[in-house]
Amino acid sequence: MFRNQRLGKTSQDVLDYLSSLEADKRIFKADLLVDRAHLIMLKENGLVSSKVCSDIFLELEKLEKNGYIIGNEEDVHEVIEKNVIVGAGPDGGRMHTGRSRNDEVATCIRLALRGEMLDLMHEQLSLIRTLVELAEKHTTTIIPGFTHTQHAQPTTLAHHLLAHADAAGRDLARLEDAYLRVNQSPLGAAAFASTGFKIDRQRTCNLLGFEGLVENSMDAVSTRDFILEVLADLSILMVNQSRLAEELVLWSTSEFGYLELDNLYASTSSIMPQKKNPDTAELARGKTGSVLGSLMAVLSICKGLPLSYNRDLQEVTPHLWRSMDWTRSTVRILDGCVSSLKFNLERLEQCAGAGFSTATELADSLVRITGMPFRTAHLIVGRIAASGRRPDLGELDSISLEYAGFRPSEHDFSEANLERALDPRSNVALRANTGGPAPVETERMIRDRLGRIAEGEERLAGRRSRVEKALGELGKER
Amino acid sequence: MFRNQRLGKTSQDVLDYLSSLEADKRIFKADLLVDRAHLIMLKENGLVSSKVCSDIFLELEKLEKNGYIIGNEEDVHEVIEKNVIVGAGPDGGRMHTGRSRNDEVATCIRLALRGEMLDLMHEQLSLIRTLVELAEKHTTTIIPGFTHTQHAQPTTLAHHLLAHADAAGRDLARLEDAYLRVNQSPLGAAAFASTGFKIDRQRTCNLLGFEGLVENSMDAVSTRDFILEVLADLSILMVNQSRLAEELVLWSTSEFGYLELDNLYASTSSIMPQKKNPDTAELARGKTGSVLGSLMAVLSICKGLPLSYNRDLQEVTPHLWRSMDWTRSTVRILDGCVSSLKFNLERLEQCAGAGFSTATELADSLVRITGMPFRTAHLIVGRIAASGRRPDLGELDSISLEYAGFRPSEHDFSEANLERALDPRSNVALRANTGGPAPVETERMIRDRLGRIAEGEERLAGRRSRVEKALGELGKER
Amino acid sequence: MFRNQRLGKTSQDVLDYLSSLEADKRIFKADLLVDRAHLIMLKENGLVSSKVCSDIFLELEKLEKNGYIIGNEEDVHEVIEKNVIVGAGPDGGRMHTGRSRNDEVATCIRLALRGEMLDLMHEQLSLIRTLVELAEKHTTTIIPGFTHTQHAQPTTLAHHLLAHADAAGRDLARLEDAYLRVNQSPLGAAAFASTGFKIDRQRTCNLLGFEGLVENSMDAVSTRDFILEVLADLSILMVNQSRLAEELVLWSTSEFGYLELDNLYASTSSIMPQKKNPDTAELARGKTGSVLGSLMAVLSICKGLPLSYNRDLQEVTPHLWRSMDWTRSTVRILDGCVSSLKFNLERLEQCAGAGFSTATELADSLVRITGMPFRTAHLIVGRIAASGRRPDLGELDSISLEYAGFRPSEHDFSEANLERALDPRSNVALRANTGGPAPVETERMIRDRLGRIAEGEERLAGRRSRVEKALGELGKER
Amino acid sequence: MFRNQRLGKTSQDVLDYLSSLEADKRIFKADLLVDRAHLIMLKENGLVSSKVCSDIFLELEKLEKNGYIIGNEEDVHEVIEKNVIVGAGPDGGRMHTGRSRNDEVATCIRLALRGEMLDLMHEQLSLIRTLVELAEKHTTTIIPGFTHTQHAQPTTLAHHLLAHADAAGRDLARLEDAYLRVNQSPLGAAAFASTGFKIDRQRTCNLLGFEGLVENSMDAVSTRDFILEVLADLSILMVNQSRLAEELVLWSTSEFGYLELDNLYASTSSIMPQKKNPDTAELARGKTGSVLGSLMAVLSICKGLPLSYNRDLQEVTPHLWRSMDWTRSTVRILDGCVSSLKFNLERLEQCAGAGFSTATELADSLVRITGMPFRTAHLIVGRIAASGRRPDLGELDSISLEYAGFRPSEHDFSEANLERALDPRSNVALRANTGGPAPVETERMIRDRLGRIAEGEERLAGRRSRVEKALGELGKER
Repeated sequence: MFRNQRLGKTSQDVLDYLSSLEADKRIFKADLLVDRAHLIMLKENGLVSSKVCSDIFLELEKLEKNGYIIGNEEDVHEVIEKNVIVGAGPDGGRMHTGRSRNDEVATCIRLALRGEMLDLMHEQLSLIRTLVELAEKHTTTIIPGFTHTQHAQPTTLAHHLLAHADAAGRDLARLEDAYLRVNQSPLGAAAFASTGFKIDRQRTCNLLGFEGLVENSMDAVSTRDFILEVLADLSILMVNQSRLAEELVLWSTSEFGYLELDNLYASTSSIMPQKKNPDTAELARGKTGSVLGSLMAVLSICKGLPLSYNRDLQEVTPHLWRSMDWTRSTVRILDGCVSSLKFNLERLEQCAGAGFSTATELADSLVRITGMPFRTAHLIVGRIAASGRRPDLGELDSISLEYAGFRPSEHDFSEANLERALDPRSNVALRANTGGPAPVETERMIRDRLGRIAEGEERLAGRRSRVEKALGELGKER
Repeated sequence: MFRNQRLGKTSQDVLDYLSSLEADKRIFKADLLVDRAHLIMLKENGLVSSKVCSDIFLELEKLEKNGYIIGNEEDVHEVIEKNVIVGAGPDGGRMHTGRSRNDEVATCIRLALRGEMLDLMHEQLSLIRTLVELAEKHTTTIIPGFTHTQHAQPTTLAHHLLAHADAAGRDLARLEDAYLRVNQSPLGAAAFASTGFKIDRQRTCNLLGFEGLVENSMDAVSTRDFILEVLADLSILMVNQSRLAEELVLWSTSEFGYLELDNLYASTSSIMPQKKNPDTAELARGKTGSVLGSLMAVLSICKGLPLSYNRDLQEVTPHLWRSMDWTRSTVRILDGCVSSLKFNLERLEQCAGAGFSTATELADSLVRITGMPFRTAHLIVGRIAASGRRPDLGELDSISLEYAGFRPSEHDFSEANLERALDPRSNVALRANTGGPAPVETERMIRDRLGRIAEGEERLAGRRSRVEKALGELGKER
Repeated sequence: MFRNQRLGKTSQDVLDYLSSLEADKRIFKADLLVDRAHLIMLKENGLVSSKVCSDIFLELEKLEKNGYIIGNEEDVHEVIEKNVIVGAGPDGGRMHTGRSRNDEVATCIRLALRGEMLDLMHEQLSLIRTLVELAEKHTTTIIPGFTHTQHAQPTTLAHHLLAHADAAGRDLARLEDAYLRVNQSPLGAAAFASTGFKIDRQRTCNLLGFEGLVENSMDAVSTRDFILEVLADLSILMVNQSRLAEELVLWSTSEFGYLELDNLYASTSSIMPQKKNPDTAELARGKTGSVLGSLMAVLSICKGLPLSYNRDLQEVTPHLWRSMDWTRSTVRILDGCVSSLKFNLERLEQCAGAGFSTATELADSLVRITGMPFRTAHLIVGRIAASGRRPDLGELDSISLEYAGFRPSEHDFSEANLERALDPRSNVALRANTGGPAPVETERMIRDRLGRIAEGEERLAGRRSRVEKALGELGKER
Repeated sequence: MFRNQRLGKTSQDVLDYLSSLEADKRIFKADLLVDRAHLIMLKENGLVSSKVCSDIFLELEKLEKNGYIIGNEEDVHEVIEKNVIVGAGPDGGRMHTGRSRNDEVATCIRLALRGEMLDLMHEQLSLIRTLVELAEKHTTTIIPGFTHTQHAQPTTLAHHLLAHADAAGRDLARLEDAYLRVNQSPLGAAAFASTGFKIDRQRTCNLLGFEGLVENSMDAVSTRDFILEVLADLSILMVNQSRLAEELVLWSTSEFGYLELDNLYASTSSIMPQKKNPDTAELARGKTGSVLGSLMAVLSICKGLPLSYNRDLQEVTPHLWRSMDWTRSTVRILDGCVSSLKFNLERLEQCAGAGFSTATELADSLVRITGMPFRTAHLIVGRIAASGRRPDLGELDSISLEYAGFRPSEHDFSEANLERALDPRSNVALRANTGGPAPVETERMIRDRLGRIAEGEERLAGRRSRVEKALGELGKER
């Protein structure tokens, strides 16, 4: 693929069109690691001499330390190889024995992506912890619960935050599943057809800390479905975060007035200091759209490509890196933003009680205590709600007599029952079923989630140390 | 949400706009199951009487047997409830105790989707088996291997088919991961805020054969990320299948002439019977685009929605069902199509040898046997290739002398080595590294994949029986 | 393409996969018109006899009146042809002289789409008129203007509504541009290579009321870019409408309380009648996502298809019809919804004045009247804003003295100036530049827009009558 | 919006998240022009003094010449303003009189985009000319015509190339329509609510060479539908180009062997010089996917945003610039690539005649000359085709006798008629209807298209000179 060697005249426009050097910056370090692992394996299998191996190692170290100068090359692999040959002589080319750019680039992408995923999982765990720890402080903070962006029933801030935390937990779980499919080694697949050199793919796999092989050599260089999967996971994660971001925007309007963003995460105007724009939350929403676009781009690029490698795939990776950056920064920003929110507790509780949003519980109480049919209770409460006033027991009795034929007060329905149904706080306390907003239940969930977070951190630490151990040993080889 | 009861004048246009009845057909049976499970739990917990429970069961059975008549209802849940109340009297409304349409619809979608996923996994396993069993017959069938849709190196049909099988295997693995997140019960979350009735969510979860709970009640009704995940998995699966479909189109052109589709999977013209159009493969490609569109639709619908339930979500499910249909039918059609392919073995082998596509191996052989540097060997072989002729040892010697300073024949490179490098068949046999096309290695992979398929079938059977057992018992309850 | 005639065994699964009959319902009437026009042209050019032509006309009329019965056909064209042959004998097949299904289907889609576009343009004009006429009533209705969903400066409801009307006007303009590219006849292109029969494409073009020909016969059957363009236009239109819908959701929350939807366009609960869910607006948002998905589907289906016709294109049209339905119903629903909105004028005006949102104008006034530098005025006003109190002239003087070195009151800045800057109503009246919210300017814009609407209606009527005239005459031919 | 002035601690992570400086590089020059125009208007309307105006002009010139240094600013507008204030003193801030960053950024984007569109239209016209001029050389070059990627009927290379040229012509027409909606001035809309300064929006509109105003000031800063429209147009254009690119890949396979790409547009390997990879065409396909992704990103970002400006919009513009770059480079590369194609004329003609692809014309001839029914002729030709042999008149007669009851040779069907139908070249000549492949018709189309191209170039020159004249005069103002 050395274009200039045999082809005729060239032009800068075409070279720019073909170049992947900009995106390749992301895999430069990965490439050096892959080179090292491949060389060690070649040496161990007698495919290059120790001397050649050492010479090349020396050049790779120089490159790592000093960076590289780009000439007319198309990609970073070519840059590295040329530099090595300049330094180590023609034998530098032996680094390329039994492999090709096709398996090399696939390996580099997976290696670099693995690292990004570990970092993202760390950041996501931190965001989840922030949400859960914030919930811990607010198990008794009453807030309006919404359906259709309309007040429906009172709930607690803890309950609401835990909903986001659980969604974020699934986002993490998907990343963990994907990690296993990403962290596989295509190295040694060569151009797609394997090689006649007796190489040891399992050895480079181990040296680079991969979990296993993308075995079939044609599959190994053709597939980018691991990128599709990660982009899909990032898209879903971002959609979940955009829902949180939307609430930050909404709840910080002067109309809602539920919360205030810390100055660091908002912007203001020199002239309207009272106006605090939720810029970070808006950008989080916006960047969600950008990640969706990347997913769509890559799906449509990969659609209908025959096996094995096609140059279209070069267009895939920049979308991955951009989306990874957008996602990771959004997770970090929202983590910081959420952890520094100031809630207007008074306003939240007041709104929670407004608008007869406890109607459902009143009807349910009537059913539970007096045994009246469900729809009858609904009719009675609807009639009360229409009046717009908070009912007293007398009023409830008289309307019930009309609709149900009896007075609730004569069927064990007391003033206390009425009060309990209508007061947001007691109302919430009643909803203690699994997953409900009652403090006793959210406290249980918080303990459970903190446990899960700890487990997740442990799993992550295990993965990271496995990788770092492998790469650390690789770094010691000469 | 009974619109007509309290709202003013209505119009058909608005009713049609709001209606989900068309899409709800897909969840009618699921809804009846959910009703049954919920009722049993209510009865067990003393929330409805045995009598009422029996009466409602009777009505549900009638509905299941006779179907339903639609009036002015907006959705299927309303249709069922009205029918039950007509049959069982006002107490029929007690079926709704402690739940809401929000948790009900989320549960129905998961139940119906679970069933579709089990069927799809079955179909995908069948397709993988078809690919692997076809590979089994073609471990020694030589074909050209492609990069950039250009002949690169010879490989075998088995190697190529196994690449598709492995990609399809990952598609299946992703579905299996998603299944665990889909098969969770939101039932009992009520509108989003749980309920004051002392219900038992774990009981309905078990009755319906779910793996666990979507615990947080707000999360349970708000999230559609399980649909996003499934649609993403279907999209990736379809992209992988579109690559196979593209090859079916390409390889069945008269120019390629590599294979012929069975008449069942092609169409022809009364006037040009020699022209066989690969319509099913083209439609498979096309339907891939449709599935991508669904994913994009649902991602953009869910983006930026505040918690909890919003009516926008009604737009989500039809995309899921359509994409599930498109994907399942595509998997089935490609399975049948692949299993009935007729390959032109002679043409494939002939093309595999044309165009000096064994050049890479010749260079590698020179390196391996004579020890000459890698790039030098490349220069020599490039020079030979430029001549367009198949080289003899004399020619190789004289060019090598010029570039490398010695004759390969004097460094253990024999006629047999030359022959082995140039002959596609021996060439392929040389590439016996893990994942390579050598028959010995593809045979190993085939055995391994057949084992994995059997494991997958067993896992699937386990899942299905678990579900069927639960639903079977549910069906017996009165 | 009569599959069953020459191919072997078939199966229902494959037939279903290939069938387009469901989507073809949308072009059945168009197909009959295309058949009629083609027949007339054939007769006029001596390619079928008058007798055969009359016989076929008779059968087409029967079909139009009685509908059709579907057998094992794949598409509607086949159904019609078979029916005609059954009725008119083998000569019925002459209807197909000099054309193919490829040009026929392309023509039918354009014909049916043209009709939908005319209807949509009508509906869009009605929506724009509704917005402008509502604006007409609210040129002096003060509302808060938003940036970042935060109050920024006061404006008027008219100004806000006109912003939506102008966006909707551009959506219409794009549709009008697209209409010209849609309303072109591919008929006579045959399979893609034209035909040896001496047909007259311009004649069928005129008979069917098309504006011109899609000339190149290969282009005529290959391209679906007119569908891509329409779907893109629908997507942009829907995005604009989703912004309006978002505001309907937002403004009808109890927190905003800016407006109330008419009951017809909202839903409520039997138990919480005070809770009015903006379901139609939520569905409008949701359907926007569905239309985006269709666009994405079709773009990715068409990407990379070689010329000319490919079966993938069959997957394209259902997306078009679905999106057209979603868009047209959304426009109609939002039209009705907007026209029946009830605004809370008091709340709007009160919010417009809250939060010192007139700060910008106060600073501008200081600059204009006293000539102080821009940033200095900003500092002064920022200082005032920070206090949270409405300033009096004395306070302004003392702060200005500190920052600017002089008292505004001594530089022509009067109490009246202060009042005018701070009062939302006078503040708005000051902003009378082109496009500004001052009543005098919005009144001018309203008159102008009403004129443009009238012109648009006239243009539309012209287009419709041109089409109807052609089809009317076509209907008279025997 | 000067974040640091009043807000508390900041952090680099958040600043990076908020920054648009990278993307703003694209609008730096536009911004300086906008500043100049705005200043001139301010001066003419007595809103800034001549002295201040001159001082600021001087600073803007310095910035243009020397570039700028970035501090902690968020965007380029802030950078420019700060630089001006440093150079010209506090009065430098007067440049901002009567405008805001909201209208400024919208104006800059439109100005920069307009320039890109003019360049793209130029490049697209060049590509169309290349296609038409290549067609001019190949009106008699016989090639196979395809449906379903299968040979269907013979056509000419001119006919095929003109199909691409006509599609590209529509792509251009859409861009021209969009240009009018892009080239509109939002300047003077201020933050969204106009300004109390008596500015002259029409004057800045003229100074900057815009066609008219985006009048409503709220619409002016809120809408990005002009970006959506351009991205949609780019997407459709790229989809059309991807179809051409796909054919370049396909036709340059060794199996097709229809054409060879010039070395400049292909890549090869040092070792397999006979293998020429169509990298540029593959990348053109790939970049199409990237552009689709941008469209999807921006549609989903804009969906559901309330008026007026929201920070989400900052995420929009980078997608525009990236897609513009991808599209423009693709058009240029394909232009060069197409103009340097080498066709294998012999192979093309040979394939055109293979496989009895003239069957349709033979049937049509039978119908035309002997008057036999259409389907009968099809049956006869189908029977002949099944034999796989080229028929002679005797064979035709005997089969016809069986199916139609008479011998064609006895009904004016001569040997010459048979020859004419079967020979690809005479066959093509018969198809001389409007849009058909007969040389006489393609020659007419070529003349017509060359005329249209000349008109397009003239229109483009007019647009460009109008813009350059305005900006030229603007440059002279001091």
